[in-house]
Amino acid sequence: MNVKDFQWKEGMTVRDLVQQYQHVGFQSVELARASDVFVKMKKNNAKIFLTFTSNMVTSGLRGFFAQLIKLKIADVIVTTVGGIEEDIMKSMGETFSIGSFNTDDVELHEQGINRVGNLTIKNESYMNFEDWINPVLQKLYDKQKRWAVSELLHEIGMQLNDENSILYQASRNNVPIFCPSITDGALGFHLFLFQQKNPDFIIDVVKDFGNILFVTSYDEKKAVIALGGSISKHHAILCTLLNGGAEYAVYMTTAHTTSGSMSGATTNEAKSWGKVKDDSDVATVIGDVTIMFPLAMIRALEVLKKEELLE
Amino acid sequence: MNVKDFQWKEGMTVRDLVQQYQHVGFQSVELARASDVFVKMKKNNAKIFLTFTSNMVTSGLRGFFAQLIKLKIADVIVTTVGGIEEDIMKSMGETFSIGSFNTDDVELHEQGINRVGNLTIKNESYMNFEDWINPVLQKLYDKQKRWAVSELLHEIGMQLNDENSILYQASRNNVPIFCPSITDGALGFHLFLFQQKNPDFIIDVVKDFGNILFVTSYDEKKAVIALGGSISKHHAILCTLLNGGAEYAVYMTTAHTTSGSMSGATTNEAKSWGKVKDDSDVATVIGDVTIMFPLAMIRALEVLKKEELLE
Amino acid sequence: MNVKDFQWKEGMTVRDLVQQYQHVGFQSVELARASDVFVKMKKNNAKIFLTFTSNMVTSGLRGFFAQLIKLKIADVIVTTVGGIEEDIMKSMGETFSIGSFNTDDVELHEQGINRVGNLTIKNESYMNFEDWINPVLQKLYDKQKRWAVSELLHEIGMQLNDENSILYQASRNNVPIFCPSITDGALGFHLFLFQQKNPDFIIDVVKDFGNILFVTSYDEKKAVIALGGSISKHHAILCTLLNGGAEYAVYMTTAHTTSGSMSGATTNEAKSWGKVKDDSDVATVIGDVTIMFPLAMIRALEVLKKEELLE
Amino acid sequence: MNVKDFQWKEGMTVRDLVQQYQHVGFQSVELARASDVFVKMKKNNAKIFLTFTSNMVTSGLRGFFAQLIKLKIADVIVTTVGGIEEDIMKSMGETFSIGSFNTDDVELHEQGINRVGNLTIKNESYMNFEDWINPVLQKLYDKQKRWAVSELLHEIGMQLNDENSILYQASRNNVPIFCPSITDGALGFHLFLFQQKNPDFIIDVVKDFGNILFVTSYDEKKAVIALGGSISKHHAILCTLLNGGAEYAVYMTTAHTTSGSMSGATTNEAKSWGKVKDDSDVATVIGDVTIMFPLAMIRALEVLKKEELLE
Repeated sequence: MNVKDFQWKEGMTVRDLVQQYQHVGFQSVELARASDVFVKMKKNNAKIFLTFTSNMVTSGLRGFFAQLIKLKIADVIVTTVGGIEEDIMKSMGETFSIGSFNTDDVELHEQGINRVGNLTIKNESYMNFEDWINPVLQKLYDKQKRWAVSELLHEIGMQLNDENSILYQASRNNVPIFCPSITDGALGFHLFLFQQKNPDFIIDVVKDFGNILFVTSYDEKKAVIALGGSISKHHAILCTLLNGGAEYAVYMTTAHTTSGSMSGATTNEAKSWGKVKDDSDVATVIGDVTIMFPLAMIRALEVLKKEELLE
Repeated sequence: MNVKDFQWKEGMTVRDLVQQYQHVGFQSVELARASDVFVKMKKNNAKIFLTFTSNMVTSGLRGFFAQLIKLKIADVIVTTVGGIEEDIMKSMGETFSIGSFNTDDVELHEQGINRVGNLTIKNESYMNFEDWINPVLQKLYDKQKRWAVSELLHEIGMQLNDENSILYQASRNNVPIFCPSITDGALGFHLFLFQQKNPDFIIDVVKDFGNILFVTSYDEKKAVIALGGSISKHHAILCTLLNGGAEYAVYMTTAHTTSGSMSGATTNEAKSWGKVKDDSDVATVIGDVTIMFPLAMIRALEVLKKEELLE
Repeated sequence: MNVKDFQWKEGMTVRDLVQQYQHVGFQSVELARASDVFVKMKKNNAKIFLTFTSNMVTSGLRGFFAQLIKLKIADVIVTTVGGIEEDIMKSMGETFSIGSFNTDDVELHEQGINRVGNLTIKNESYMNFEDWINPVLQKLYDKQKRWAVSELLHEIGMQLNDENSILYQASRNNVPIFCPSITDGALGFHLFLFQQKNPDFIIDVVKDFGNILFVTSYDEKKAVIALGGSISKHHAILCTLLNGGAEYAVYMTTAHTTSGSMSGATTNEAKSWGKVKDDSDVATVIGDVTIMFPLAMIRALEVLKKEELLE
Repeated sequence: MNVKDFQWKEGMTVRDLVQQYQHVGFQSVELARASDVFVKMKKNNAKIFLTFTSNMVTSGLRGFFAQLIKLKIADVIVTTVGGIEEDIMKSMGETFSIGSFNTDDVELHEQGINRVGNLTIKNESYMNFEDWINPVLQKLYDKQKRWAVSELLHEIGMQLNDENSILYQASRNNVPIFCPSITDGALGFHLFLFQQKNPDFIIDVVKDFGNILFVTSYDEKKAVIALGGSISKHHAILCTLLNGGAEYAVYMTTAHTTSGSMSGATTNEAKSWGKVKDDSDVATVIGDVTIMFPLAMIRALEVLKKEELLE
């Protein structure tokens, strides 16, 4: 395939743009390839694992993830607990603000404002989250004492009432949400305090390993969309590994391979493990997910819509 | 400003997308800001310096740069010599190919293929460039013996006949192209061989420093769009520094501040030098230019077109 | 402080080198500062949280971490489950190999070799791990049915017999190891199979949140050494946040702030959250931990040894 | 080769440390390999091109580069003009300071302080440079009207009197310094003003292309040590390419391959071009040069010294 001169045309759509990217070079080519893999995984009825880290839920991508669940693009979600907390906060009406990467963090601290890159979250939002979650935990405990994580999150999602919420859409669309480190956040603290009062309250992470394992099968086609790194990425591909490997995989990350981190591990490295199959369709795109992912996915959605493959 | 949930709408344009980015977070916010700065610099009649490195000319952005010159967005170009060579090659009909970041480079070498990331250039293209440039140098030498770089490039551009060529459009639109390291490429070798035969042939880089200095003035509003790093970026901001600083600056790069490189230097760091003014409108976007720049610039073009500010 | 010209002297020690770094610039200055913070945290009897990701255990840093526990530098360990599995494998005599970042991953897969950057692990090592862990789980289950993660890891460490093992040294020196995502690896699979046979076997992650919380107190001085990102980093600073913030913090990572990730979050960003105190001694060093950490820590050990502060 | 557990031993030298790195993993392995390549290039009498960007001269590495020239490690220097200016300033007694990456750049500007990452240079130093360079230019002009860049820099170096100066040592040891973009800095401005008064004053960059080409030959063994990216790196490898390719090459950079930049181009990519030979000894190390380069080079110097290969 040849490089082609890029040209702007008035009224250009995202689809037009990504179409041109496949002839531009460097990461634009990889992004266009990722978009193709998105189309193929849906067309070929693969079970799609969508993983993301909590900072993407802090960002406005949260609404997009909820939309993708509704559109039946994501069949399984894996994320970290920060993302779950923030999805709930936003469902409760809390707002996060756009700030700056360069700020006086001591001053922010004095104002009760917490920074995530160029975004900020108020302490107040965490307090409101606490007020909301405690009665929910009580209600769930009254129902049963021992909860697998994804079952707990399903029930929590049923308590929410926000179309833009990941947990809301996941609950309504029977998309399980896995979170292998459920205690690594404010929720962990509230779970701990609750268990102090109710020692027979158990979060069963081991059972949930079975749940993610059986969400798909060896014979089924599997796909992974891993946004960012961390254990959310690792957990999904560990599961596809144990089920024979994924047919499709797209990794989007700012991390590089050179330090040997999971975050920077490529779809090629995944082949050595059998996390993705030797002859799978894969793409690794290096760059900020808040820009890359909407671009590649929107173009895929447009294609799928036109081919009447979207519900 | 608050974070807003991102939503796909069918038929979404690039303008819609970038508009939403301003509420998403992380680099998407910075990209939307860059797009705003593009609009402002044009609206306020700043003299716009566009700088890029040669790998962007290897990529399909070359056609976009030519288009921007034609649209009177870029008033001054600063680049490295590789970009000039490749612009000429493409004008002659040479094609570059899309390959892979992971290849057997020894095998490529045996096939006479040179790699630039995931793009490739044939040795043959360099040989054809040599055949083309030598008679041009002779013609220019017959005209005069001592050439400032930008004057030489203007004349070369006049020899080309390709609407997608940067040099072609620059020549036709009286946009000077500066290249402070004109010998750092194949052209340097041909210039050297030519000077061997014609010892009074001189490339006057010192005179060209005056040319870039006088292309703008202290009183005029100035803007810098620096894509990637290297001396093309540095040369433009050195010039705006000597003329009182730029009012507008957008840097797009994959380099980070942490190693103190020019490539990773931010628009803030530029303020300490007076390269951009203290109260200037600036944005630094981290990411691959082949994706970032079209996005931010297309949205700016759409806005300018609608407001009838594009010729 | 002024920049000073760097000079090699024959027989230069690591201490000499890091001493000179404080006058060189860019990351060398930050590394020298990190080394200073290491000295201060130990001198002032802070409780030191050492966190690392599993790839660092894949690497030879594993032996260094074990040594630091023995030397009473690390009081608390937080890591991911991959690191625990690999520490056990190495204790059993399994060897990992040095390969290349650029390999044929399909070929590796056919040979049963898994790649982590430029290191490799054989499938066989995972099988041997399985053979070893299952009887251990049975023994622990026979003792009690419900285990907090750090208590389980303490017992596992007691079964090992390798001075270079992290778990071995941690068990012998009463250093707790926390792993908030204990199921995210091969161990998770084995725990799951074991629970299938023994449904009343419970891994209690909620209880372990209390354990990490009470490992230190509000009044005690606290320090965090976070190598790499992921939940190991986050979990430690979440704990110091809940206990009033750390007095000392050193982050070493290849991730940058620009994408808003936890991995790239700086010690300054931590101040906005109260994860580290406003007036704390902090350093963020950008670079590969396998190089940076030994450098900065060795120089600190030399200083501490000389001042007779090392046991 | 197997991964080995890293161990601190009291009084550890830099040589001991780098020796251990070869068994650690990720970039430490690559750094140890780079050190080996340094030893080999010197042992096998390769002509060694040392290239660096100006920020490394801003840093304290400047003294180390001077020392390497004196020790006959570097046979040819290629750099950017900023590095030349700053080497001269430091020779005149100007001092640069260590600051912070996060500062108020507007405030710095008001104080006449310019920032390069976490280092700062006073405006005053530039003014003193101006006062020094002008009479030197006059003296050189009186001698001859047309100067190749490296010849000019040789003469300037002869005017200096500082053992820690790159230009001083280069002049005394007949090591040519090439700078293909001599006008891209304050010096460019002074050259321009001087030419205004003396129109027959010519800086001949084309002739200097011949000089760098003939500094080595097709048959001679060649080596490249490229620190950072930019045209200094490119110019050296362009020269080795035209002379049949280098036998040895070490690249150290923070840039990655993924955006197709010259700064991030690896020694493998160089093979496709014939910049380095197919069977050459190469290493690419990712990380901050101020830390990496001293480490790898000091260990090489210790080895060479012991084998009596250092003058």
